[in-house]
Amino acid sequence: MDKLKVLIGSRQAPDIEAMLSEVPIGVEVSFLPHGEPLGDHIADVEILFGHIGEDAIQAATVLRWAHQPHAGVEGFMYPAFKESAIMLTNCRGLYGTQIAEHAFALLLSLTRQIPAQLEFMKTKHWERLPCIELAGMTMGILGLGGIGKAIATRARAFEFDVVAVDAEPVDKPDTVSELFGLDTLMDFLARTHILVVCCPITPETHKLLSHAQFNRMPDASYVVNISRGKVIDEDALLAALRSGKLAGAGLDVTYTEPCPPENPLWDQQNVILTSHSAGASQHIRRRAMQLFIDNLHRYVAGEPLVNLVNKEKGY
Amino acid sequence: MDKLKVLIGSRQAPDIEAMLSEVPIGVEVSFLPHGEPLGDHIADVEILFGHIGEDAIQAATVLRWAHQPHAGVEGFMYPAFKESAIMLTNCRGLYGTQIAEHAFALLLSLTRQIPAQLEFMKTKHWERLPCIELAGMTMGILGLGGIGKAIATRARAFEFDVVAVDAEPVDKPDTVSELFGLDTLMDFLARTHILVVCCPITPETHKLLSHAQFNRMPDASYVVNISRGKVIDEDALLAALRSGKLAGAGLDVTYTEPCPPENPLWDQQNVILTSHSAGASQHIRRRAMQLFIDNLHRYVAGEPLVNLVNKEKGY
Repeated sequence: MDKLKVLIGSRQAPDIEAMLSEVPIGVEVSFLPHGEPLGDHIADVEILFGHIGEDAIQAATVLRWAHQPHAGVEGFMYPAFKESAIMLTNCRGLYGTQIAEHAFALLLSLTRQIPAQLEFMKTKHWERLPCIELAGMTMGILGLGGIGKAIATRARAFEFDVVAVDAEPVDKPDTVSELFGLDTLMDFLARTHILVVCCPITPETHKLLSHAQFNRMPDASYVVNISRGKVIDEDALLAALRSGKLAGAGLDVTYTEPCPPENPLWDQQNVILTSHSAGASQHIRRRAMQLFIDNLHRYVAGEPLVNLVNKEKGY
Repeated sequence: MDKLKVLIGSRQAPDIEAMLSEVPIGVEVSFLPHGEPLGDHIADVEILFGHIGEDAIQAATVLRWAHQPHAGVEGFMYPAFKESAIMLTNCRGLYGTQIAEHAFALLLSLTRQIPAQLEFMKTKHWERLPCIELAGMTMGILGLGGIGKAIATRARAFEFDVVAVDAEPVDKPDTVSELFGLDTLMDFLARTHILVVCCPITPETHKLLSHAQFNRMPDASYVVNISRGKVIDEDALLAALRSGKLAGAGLDVTYTEPCPPENPLWDQQNVILTSHSAGASQHIRRRAMQLFIDNLHRYVAGEPLVNLVNKEKGY
């Protein structure tokens, strides 16, 4: 019987080989040689660990399952992949804790004047600055998936009132006091002093936050984006920062990444940019590989895979 | 009948006059003229809002109550004040939320690489850096008063195991999994990946954290100090940072304040200093004044004051 061929197309941490000792019998794992195009190595591959683009999809004649070792899957949402029978899984559920920690790092750095204090340190200058206490304010979570829920839990302990909006009917956890649909986004924004963007990028969320949306927020609000930069119209964000409508923005992501040098967000007062690192954690490589290995055992056993992506919804 | 004389010896926010419209009938409030010594204005004062030092205490012949509009009262712990019959109240209980927010700002800035990312912004450099996920680690809270408890609540939501040490037998809140006495400080430190200093400065806590204490902590731990710099032996702290025993320190306070230019902490890698601003909040002036006004009504009515300081204990 032919071996089941798995190709690792994504560069991974050194512990990958230890983890791969756990693959099921009858599975042959190979690695995409560094720098070589995926299309040259995909022809006989049934399972791909990593991304496949439009350039390689025609060559993937026996590919049945692709696993994205991240949470965002918008890179797979082109017609040839969406219309194919290839199953797609992702790493949703592995990012809640570290991304929630990152979201609070961004938010609290803004309110507790960390950037100004770090500048003071360079000249050994000791000066107490006004700081904003957030307790009692309302945090609005845009996208109540695993990451949004992890943020909501922490926000309640920080004595925020937490409201959320989701495109779908989701269960409202006890940490969230009110749940809105996308059709009532403007009502949600009117209450939101601290907006945290946690939603995937889809046609519905592309530039969802623009001038009208920021203008609906209370004055001197905060925006934190730890999901996808394309949810925000950056011209509108800049206008809101410059007018004082927004007191600050903590952005792990930008519309184009890497953020291009001409993007005025680099120089904008009260903005912190963190180079798409919210998902970083000393644990993530191990967790992501374990999820894949567990799914590989399910695949071989003919069981349903976990973390299957709904290609229609795009997440 | 003579009026009850209250002297405001501490500079306050502009809303002080609105608040003072609420003082009881029969109370005369005056303000210490800017730049003049307290000793020249204290002789007929029964109630002082602010600090009195050794230079003025002999002139305070009718002073019965001093109110410290902050939490720390070590400035009153000299013999002539301690031995006097003057009651002392402070603002404990008003600082938990904003100081907890500040403690997390310091901690998460260290683990999420905020200082390095802010430097990257200056050259418009986009580079993901390794970050530390804290969930699952143990936070050790040194001093389980109102501030320590506020931090513990948030730490549990961040999925930390929380242990605490207190010099006195205090009730263990559900957020704390184990409570230690000062006699078992070393056992507490052996478990503590994230040490948060929340205790008052007293003879017992002066340089309580020195070489042996830091060495007892797990490697690559974090220290956050949002109470008093004198609890830490800074030579030992620097040694622990330089050896890698500590991965970082977030310090709102230093042994001497303002932190002198020659203090090597200014230049130490993985240190954030924030100029004793953890108590800063847009709400604190109003809250502190309300606490005083409420106590003033109690005083006039002959009722016990709240937030009385135990002069023996020093807090």
